[in-house]
Amino acid sequence: MTRLTEYLLPTEKQAPADAEAISHKLMVRAGLIRQMGAGMWTWLPAGWRVHQRVVQIVREEIDAIGGREMLMPVLQPAEPWRKTGRLEIEELFKLHHRKGSELVLAMTHEEALAFHAAQTIHSYRDLPLILYHFQVKERDEPRPRAGVLRTREFVMKDSYSLDRDQAGLEESYERHVGAYDRIMQRTGLRFYRVESDVGMMGGLGAHEYMAPCPAGEDEVALAPDYAANVEVALKSSEVEQVGDRLLRGGEPLTVEPAIEVGNIFKLGTRYSEALGATYLDERGEAHPIWMGSYGIGPARLVAAAVEQFADEHGISWPRALAPFAVHLVTLGGPGTPERDAADRLYEDLRGGGVDVLYDDRERGPGEKFADAELLGCPLRLTVGRRSLDSGEVEVQVRRGRKDAPGLPLSGERAELVRAVDELWQSLP
Amino acid sequence: MTRLTEYLLPTEKQAPADAEAISHKLMVRAGLIRQMGAGMWTWLPAGWRVHQRVVQIVREEIDAIGGREMLMPVLQPAEPWRKTGRLEIEELFKLHHRKGSELVLAMTHEEALAFHAAQTIHSYRDLPLILYHFQVKERDEPRPRAGVLRTREFVMKDSYSLDRDQAGLEESYERHVGAYDRIMQRTGLRFYRVESDVGMMGGLGAHEYMAPCPAGEDEVALAPDYAANVEVALKSSEVEQVGDRLLRGGEPLTVEPAIEVGNIFKLGTRYSEALGATYLDERGEAHPIWMGSYGIGPARLVAAAVEQFADEHGISWPRALAPFAVHLVTLGGPGTPERDAADRLYEDLRGGGVDVLYDDRERGPGEKFADAELLGCPLRLTVGRRSLDSGEVEVQVRRGRKDAPGLPLSGERAELVRAVDELWQSLP
Repeated sequence: MTRLTEYLLPTEKQAPADAEAISHKLMVRAGLIRQMGAGMWTWLPAGWRVHQRVVQIVREEIDAIGGREMLMPVLQPAEPWRKTGRLEIEELFKLHHRKGSELVLAMTHEEALAFHAAQTIHSYRDLPLILYHFQVKERDEPRPRAGVLRTREFVMKDSYSLDRDQAGLEESYERHVGAYDRIMQRTGLRFYRVESDVGMMGGLGAHEYMAPCPAGEDEVALAPDYAANVEVALKSSEVEQVGDRLLRGGEPLTVEPAIEVGNIFKLGTRYSEALGATYLDERGEAHPIWMGSYGIGPARLVAAAVEQFADEHGISWPRALAPFAVHLVTLGGPGTPERDAADRLYEDLRGGGVDVLYDDRERGPGEKFADAELLGCPLRLTVGRRSLDSGEVEVQVRRGRKDAPGLPLSGERAELVRAVDELWQSLP
Repeated sequence: MTRLTEYLLPTEKQAPADAEAISHKLMVRAGLIRQMGAGMWTWLPAGWRVHQRVVQIVREEIDAIGGREMLMPVLQPAEPWRKTGRLEIEELFKLHHRKGSELVLAMTHEEALAFHAAQTIHSYRDLPLILYHFQVKERDEPRPRAGVLRTREFVMKDSYSLDRDQAGLEESYERHVGAYDRIMQRTGLRFYRVESDVGMMGGLGAHEYMAPCPAGEDEVALAPDYAANVEVALKSSEVEQVGDRLLRGGEPLTVEPAIEVGNIFKLGTRYSEALGATYLDERGEAHPIWMGSYGIGPARLVAAAVEQFADEHGISWPRALAPFAVHLVTLGGPGTPERDAADRLYEDLRGGGVDVLYDDRERGPGEKFADAELLGCPLRLTVGRRSLDSGEVEVQVRRGRKDAPGLPLSGERAELVRAVDELWQSLP
């Protein structure tokens, strides 16, 4: 039931006046997101489909390394944050309930996880564990900007590893590196894993996943065998700055702007010690649990994909993230044979399990094609008068705007679905 | 990979000291939920599985009536709430961001939906629409109680219908009645749809879905052809109170405590007028959009299922909500033939797509059986020394604690899976 006449896809010719980032402009123009207030965004139905495609990839890969999905609250007592020394973070929203107790809105969930670990983990037999959730985070962001790239509220997947010692943490960390690498590969994005600072999280080491794109607020320094956050590179003895260039072993490094789409931290025992999360070993001795923390922001992956693959006509989704596989356009009004043919094609594709958005609106071809290119589904199928004459549906591949061979208009459904699927599988 | 040795299922012999409701006690004892603060709860992995089963049923039924899933923010500007006159609601959390603007934490999303409708709906051609999301809600609840039944934060599915006139609203409302009836039927709960007051939502009429159970804070008045919220019944001319009895047409009504698990409202134009959500008709005249609002609380459905079906040994899930279909218990330690047989059975069931939790811990049979009855999966399979002798896996049906005929221990995987599936399909 995804007929555009029964869908909410409010495309716009103009980008919001304050929009600078490509993703901000295009995601609003394509009807994927709308702002409710500065840094507070709504995902409209087509945008939410893209967001949830990222979520499902992340879920599958974290499940595959043994992650257990759960849900921790956003609204939390202030006490655990006081104990870890993070209550004073400026980005942390604080509030009071009507009886006066101090509450916070979680910006990440190390405190919650360590709090529950203290209650529920007793023995070395209970370890190791990987726990995760998808939950909204709130941050009192001083400068919300760039659409969904820097917001006051966003959904994050955060997972936490619990281990008995540093060797266990290193192993859980490596499993996350593997999962994150696969997540990034599956999204179809260009990305780098770079060493990073631990920042406000503390701990023993950290990496960031960076997606290069024009709206990036960070910078990565790159060489064929090297990738680092520029801030980290500049602190390294390997890298020297000569004028406005960075050199490593005498060779110049390329510097690209990039978005941080994920980060992973070896926390060590900072949070478990503060919150009393210990386990008893084989001899009955108590030790603090070793923790790791692993975040990934689906919204930023979505925006990075828009940034990396947009052209002057709009968005051009990688296959794995597209809201729909096929954008079907009918050029005939109700009652015309070309409209009937398009209706049949729509039912055949839907019946065959193809994700198809059907533009059945009474609009001109120019507007319909422009909207299809703006939304950026990988395949556009067009049924018009010409299709009836030639017996073929016109096929355009969005990325590169290439025409593909037409599909037979009146073939068997199974054959048609197979042809669309084959074409789909060949796309990046 | 759901071996209990690699899972977080912290069962407890004692219920929390402050717990009165059956669901509060059992959900904590079974390791499904843990409290982070008063009214602030974490869903542990097994609990989250149950919660998400309800979510998936709701999603399927709302999709089936044409609902479009999206996501609106919890953190919102105060302004739309001021416009609808709801900023003064005491349960509404208010806060400020660091630059001083007033924000709220949404307890429901009528304001957000009407705000976006004002931006994105222009013409009668854009209507009707049903939009929905699953999102956390925050309420400054003065008396959190009864585990997940009355909390400060909870996930709600709220959908909103947008129509051009009252007739359209009535139709959208009836579609929701159908969807809600099917949702309740699919969960396996005993429930009533009753007329209710519109309360703080305002509007033209409302119904509640009530699940009778001991922890209910509401009361429903029942007769074979009648069901109403007692508050509503008492205002009706049909019902009279005689002493401590309620009579309707001279016949006594039964009164049962019940939990409100869902509510649906014909809002009319209250929110759309306040927020300027209008559309142009065929003649170019502007009219306010007619709205309906439809909420359902997965957490309350989960708790109601616990309340309705618990016995003195623990939870007894209806099939549709069970965290796992099968709780497999091995009575042999590592290296024993019975342990090997249980390991093989586990792999066969998993390979056959059966949701199975495998208790592979080194604990005594008493503790394992007690934990299985507490968690309440519909089928328990036991592999011990006796299985090797008889060649059969023992089968217990949780509801009623009935033994079922044993399953052959060394049959073909496909046959075994078919036998488990057949038994499963026969359960309530």
